[in-house]
Amino acid sequence: MGSTYPEHLRQEVERYLEGMRFSEEPLTAGLEEAMRYSLLAGGKRTRPVLALATAEAIGTPRDVVMPLAAAIELIHTYSLIHDDLPAMDDDDLRRGRPTCHKAFGEDVAILAGDALYAEAFKLLLGEQRGEPRNLLRAACRLAAATGVEGMVGGQYIDVTETAPPGPEGLRRLHELKTGQLIAASIDCVLLLDGTLQPDRIASYGRFAGELGVLFQIVDDILDVIGSSETLGKRQGSDERLGKRTYVTEFGLEGARKLATESHDRARAALVEAAPAGARELEQITDFIVNRTH
Amino acid sequence: MGSTYPEHLRQEVERYLEGMRFSEEPLTAGLEEAMRYSLLAGGKRTRPVLALATAEAIGTPRDVVMPLAAAIELIHTYSLIHDDLPAMDDDDLRRGRPTCHKAFGEDVAILAGDALYAEAFKLLLGEQRGEPRNLLRAACRLAAATGVEGMVGGQYIDVTETAPPGPEGLRRLHELKTGQLIAASIDCVLLLDGTLQPDRIASYGRFAGELGVLFQIVDDILDVIGSSETLGKRQGSDERLGKRTYVTEFGLEGARKLATESHDRARAALVEAAPAGARELEQITDFIVNRTH
Repeated sequence: MGSTYPEHLRQEVERYLEGMRFSEEPLTAGLEEAMRYSLLAGGKRTRPVLALATAEAIGTPRDVVMPLAAAIELIHTYSLIHDDLPAMDDDDLRRGRPTCHKAFGEDVAILAGDALYAEAFKLLLGEQRGEPRNLLRAACRLAAATGVEGMVGGQYIDVTETAPPGPEGLRRLHELKTGQLIAASIDCVLLLDGTLQPDRIASYGRFAGELGVLFQIVDDILDVIGSSETLGKRQGSDERLGKRTYVTEFGLEGARKLATESHDRARAALVEAAPAGARELEQITDFIVNRTH
Repeated sequence: MGSTYPEHLRQEVERYLEGMRFSEEPLTAGLEEAMRYSLLAGGKRTRPVLALATAEAIGTPRDVVMPLAAAIELIHTYSLIHDDLPAMDDDDLRRGRPTCHKAFGEDVAILAGDALYAEAFKLLLGEQRGEPRNLLRAACRLAAATGVEGMVGGQYIDVTETAPPGPEGLRRLHELKTGQLIAASIDCVLLLDGTLQPDRIASYGRFAGELGVLFQIVDDILDVIGSSETLGKRQGSDERLGKRTYVTEFGLEGARKLATESHDRARAALVEAAPAGARELEQITDFIVNRTH
């Protein structure tokens, strides 16, 4: 469909992540290797790219928010490592390579995830420039987005299958599991800035929430229609695990229709949030939905 | 030996922890139950009590630092849950009860640990009063103390047995694994205060470092001489895992001698840090060493 991903932002994130070192201690070199193995496995870097694109949209120089953006990607990587563990989704393949626990052992994988979370906050709290009060708010938002009322809570609902039947349960699951961190990738940039009017913050909030929904619907569709090769992970893993998805709930065409509607709502919210336009955020929104068609 | 532990501080911590709720979301009630199961299993609450005692010593009302103190205990609890996992130390018993993964399953235990870590930062960044700049420094110190160059790095060295032979390797292992978080329990209070002179900060730093060493030596001794009943965990688990300890390295009497020397150095550093006296910090220091005799 010819949608363009803001590749220049992805490359900037990639370079920053490649330059990261966590310690010079030789005794923990193996831990750092496992962290970097998972962190530098490629991918679209959707969350940090969203953070940089949000900075552009509100007029913050994007290099300013790079520590925040990178911290979010560290946290996303940690969540993938823990989700893949034998006690969780038990996945062998991630982004075309053995998962962290397959490559380094289960103990090291658990610790690599734990360490990435700690280093994310160390980076954010120690390296991110900004008004201290605003930085505290952004960091607190990121902690909340990854705790019981966010990413980890969502993963709990997922592995224990406690979500009630029907679309509302599914929506709530994903709101926590993936939606909160995606929303935080946008929110935290606004909080760090601290100057935006409440109505525009609310519009960005609607955009971010809808983008999280869209992202998950598309993820579910791709799990069915994508090949293992292009996905870089085992295709059909949702089905294998008997997971409820937008496709099991609504069928493939129903899910595609939902994706289109969600995309329309996201674009509408974005127009309210950034009346003068926000080129990269628009590109990301279009890119996500177009992968399914 | 009649050493008195500052029990009133422990009780204040206990009450605060008991009052904590992480979410009202019914879908994650089971996760919260697992978190609280491990968090409220009792124990001496050494780290938060150290934080409150440090506040007393420098003239900060101790209720002010309670969110920080509790955050540190949340992190300590998370580390115990992950350390006990089958892929790590594979322990069935902790504080006289089944470990978190025995009671709730391995997946929930991993997530309970992850969630406690996130909620610790949410609590600290969202609830702790203080000058924003100082709070940022304290929170960054806590992140560093629990990352690659701290607790998680130390646990990596422990499980992969990468420490070089001899006392120096053992010391380095424990400096990271337990020493950093104990030191942070004191440091973070000083950073949050932000008014102490550099020479007194340095003295507190020496005290904190030595206390970490002392704590570990005593822990190793108790693993050999304590009964499973009084320890609340399986006695001799270090030996079962073939771990190097101060006792395997120096023998029981050698370790006791080291504990006494470490205690003396800690007390000396404390006199420099708090020339006017610091009753609770003195009590804690004495209490730790006297458990071995």
